[in-house]
Amino acid sequence: MSSDIAYKKYQNKDEYSYTLGAFPTIELLKNKPQYVREVFVHPDMDSAEQREILTSLCKDNNISLSVSKKIVEKLRDKENIFCIGIFNKYNEELSNGNHVVLVNPGDMGNLGTIIRTCIGFGFNDLVIIEPAADIFNPKVVRASMGALFQLRFKRYSSFDEYVSGNKQRNIYLFMLKGAENLQTLKRDNSECFSLVFGNEATGLPDEYVKYGKSILIKHKNTIDSLNLSMACGIALYEFSK
Amino acid sequence: MSSDIAYKKYQNKDEYSYTLGAFPTIELLKNKPQYVREVFVHPDMDSAEQREILTSLCKDNNISLSVSKKIVEKLRDKENIFCIGIFNKYNEELSNGNHVVLVNPGDMGNLGTIIRTCIGFGFNDLVIIEPAADIFNPKVVRASMGALFQLRFKRYSSFDEYVSGNKQRNIYLFMLKGAENLQTLKRDNSECFSLVFGNEATGLPDEYVKYGKSILIKHKNTIDSLNLSMACGIALYEFSK
Repeated sequence: MSSDIAYKKYQNKDEYSYTLGAFPTIELLKNKPQYVREVFVHPDMDSAEQREILTSLCKDNNISLSVSKKIVEKLRDKENIFCIGIFNKYNEELSNGNHVVLVNPGDMGNLGTIIRTCIGFGFNDLVIIEPAADIFNPKVVRASMGALFQLRFKRYSSFDEYVSGNKQRNIYLFMLKGAENLQTLKRDNSECFSLVFGNEATGLPDEYVKYGKSILIKHKNTIDSLNLSMACGIALYEFSK
Repeated sequence: MSSDIAYKKYQNKDEYSYTLGAFPTIELLKNKPQYVREVFVHPDMDSAEQREILTSLCKDNNISLSVSKKIVEKLRDKENIFCIGIFNKYNEELSNGNHVVLVNPGDMGNLGTIIRTCIGFGFNDLVIIEPAADIFNPKVVRASMGALFQLRFKRYSSFDEYVSGNKQRNIYLFMLKGAENLQTLKRDNSECFSLVFGNEATGLPDEYVKYGKSILIKHKNTIDSLNLSMACGIALYEFSK
C-alpha cells in the first residue's frame, strides 16, 4: 500500500526522515528495515540493477515500493536523485563496548563523515551530547553514505548524564591543551574506552579534564586546529590499532 | 587607489579570486601580500580588532582598503561576511622536500580540508594532477581556512609529467588494493617522499602501481572506502611521525 501522507521537505520536528538516493536507501533497507515506512522511485531511474535490489529488499521486508515522479521530485534536493526511502526516527541502546562521544557537534557534514569513519574503523556506538546537529537530517544520512544505519547511537542532555549511565571505562578527551600526545600514549587496555570530542568551534571545555585523560593530536602551530572530523578520524585510526 | 573594475561573482576563468571573510583575508595579507589587488570592508563590520589588523596589514603592504557596502554585498555568498580580499591567481615552484599529490581531486570542500591538514602536519608542497577542482575557488579558500596561502602548489597535466620533473623520491600510492598496510609500513628515509591520492569516486587507477609502493589504510569492509580527506589526513598524520 502506498501512503496517503502528504510528505514534505524534511524538518527537524518530523517523526520520520528520508534517504535521498538509491545507495543510502539500500543501506537503510539492509540494516534497518523495521523502521522503513515506504520507498519511492522516479520513473526515470535508469539503473536496472539498483531497481532490482530495491525491489527485492522491499519485497523481502514487506515494504511498499511505488513509482512516483511527483513525490521524488518534491522531496529531492538534487536532480540526480531518483529514489527516496521514508523511515521513522528511532532510538537504540548502546553496547557496552568502546564508544565515540561527540559533545555538541554542530555541522551535519562533519557528523556524517564521522559516522562513516566510525563504522570503517569498527566503532559502532556513538554518543551525542545535546544540543547537537540533527543526526536524522537527510544531509547527515547522505554524508555518512548510509553508514548511519549500521550505527547504534544515543543522545544525552549532558556529559554527566552519559558518565553516570556508563561507568567503568577509560575516558580519553581530545583537547588542544591535551596533556598526552596521541602518538606516544600508552593505553590501559583493561577496560573499554570512550573517545570524546568537542564542538567544531569551541572544542571541549577545560573543566572536562576531570572526567579522564586529555589527549593532544600534535600539529604545527601554522593552523589553529585540525578540522573536527579529521581529528576524530586520526584518533579512531590510532585507537583501532 | 580603489579599483574601477566591476568585480563579479567568482568564475573559474577569472584571473583573480576572492577571500570571503576577515579571517582568510588576514591570512592572505600575511602570507601573500604581493598578489593582493585590494581589500573591501562592509560598513557594518563590527570587530574593531579585525578592522585594525586589516588596516595595518594593508598599510604595511601599500594595499588599498576601501569601505563599500555595495561591493561586499555583491560578492559575498553569506550574510555574515563583511570583508573581501581580491587577489591575482599565482603559480609557485615546489620545494624539493616531501610532496602531497592529488590526482584529479573533484570536491572543493575536500580540497580545502586537505590543504589545511597538509599545513597542520608540515607538508607545505601540494601537487595537483589535472583535471581537478579549481584550487582558487573561494570555496576552497574558505574550507582551507586561509591555509592555502601558506602552501606551495603546482599543477601538472599528467602524473608522468610530475614524475619526470621530480625524480629521486619514494612514491607512496594510497589505494584500496594497496599491498602494504600503513600501520606496519617500514619507510625508506634515505630520500624525500610523495604521498599520492586518487579521485574521490574512482581512487587511483590500478596501473599506478608501476610508479611506486602501494599502501592500504586498513578499514572494515562495512564501508566501501574512507572519505578522501580522511584517508589523506590519516596518512599525513602517520608520515609526520
